[in-house]
Amino acid sequence: MADCIFCSILEGKLDAYFVYRGRGVAVFLDKYPVSRGHLLVVPESHYEGVHDAPPEVAARVWTAASAIARFYRERLGAPGVNVVTNSGSVAGQVVFHFHVHVIPRWGPTRGFWGGRHELTEEEAGEVLERLRGVEGLIEEYLDRIGRS
Amino acid sequence: MADCIFCSILEGKLDAYFVYRGRGVAVFLDKYPVSRGHLLVVPESHYEGVHDAPPEVAARVWTAASAIARFYRERLGAPGVNVVTNSGSVAGQVVFHFHVHVIPRWGPTRGFWGGRHELTEEEAGEVLERLRGVEGLIEEYLDRIGRS
Repeated sequence: MADCIFCSILEGKLDAYFVYRGRGVAVFLDKYPVSRGHLLVVPESHYEGVHDAPPEVAARVWTAASAIARFYRERLGAPGVNVVTNSGSVAGQVVFHFHVHVIPRWGPTRGFWGGRHELTEEEAGEVLERLRGVEGLIEEYLDRIGRS
Repeated sequence: MADCIFCSILEGKLDAYFVYRGRGVAVFLDKYPVSRGHLLVVPESHYEGVHDAPPEVAARVWTAASAIARFYRERLGAPGVNVVTNSGSVAGQVVFHFHVHVIPRWGPTRGFWGGRHELTEEEAGEVLERLRGVEGLIEEYLDRIGRS
């Protein structure tokens, strides 16, 4: 969709650090992370939010997010993780292309959305390095929920 | 599981206001809502969180939550809704039985988890009344993602 930042990222017109791409879903680093490793999971096709995405599309997005949550908790030892989507500006949505935030929590935080900062190249490189292997778990999860 | 509040609710040992129950998933009102209509979606079987629930189980829980989000936005006119799970106490998890919060937003709020209060019978009755018909949408969504 024209003027959609995430569509532009998916079309390669804007840069992002991709973690996974396939089966109608993409995962990339949030440009303004609230924690180290804050990721976004989006459908390749444009929907405004969880409220208008078809069930099958939303299920794939949530399933990829669930795989990443497991990866953070069980393989990287994060003591916590939040998985969240905001639908509507009063709910905190800023980009109107359905996206699910996966926010690892490495310790106590200052509020839910606290600590937001602009992602640096160094931080991105480190996060991508630690996430090696997550693509396999995402695909395993997507296989498990079946048809797409 | 012994000593799990949500398992006790599911077994009928503790009361809750149920919105939907079927296909391995249950939806009931949060006892301490942050907004009018704050619901919880849980799997009938016990898992600690999104990080250890099998992909198929998590997909059903997220799918029911997505249906409710659509119902709030499109049928009840809520301008916003948050769909969120917290995994781990540092992420804000308090009950260790996987649950997804669906939080309609009827206007600007005081922080993400602000406004929490104890649910009254009157409030519960009003919410259940407005949610008539949501069971059908939940089942339609679950049908769309297929096998369970």
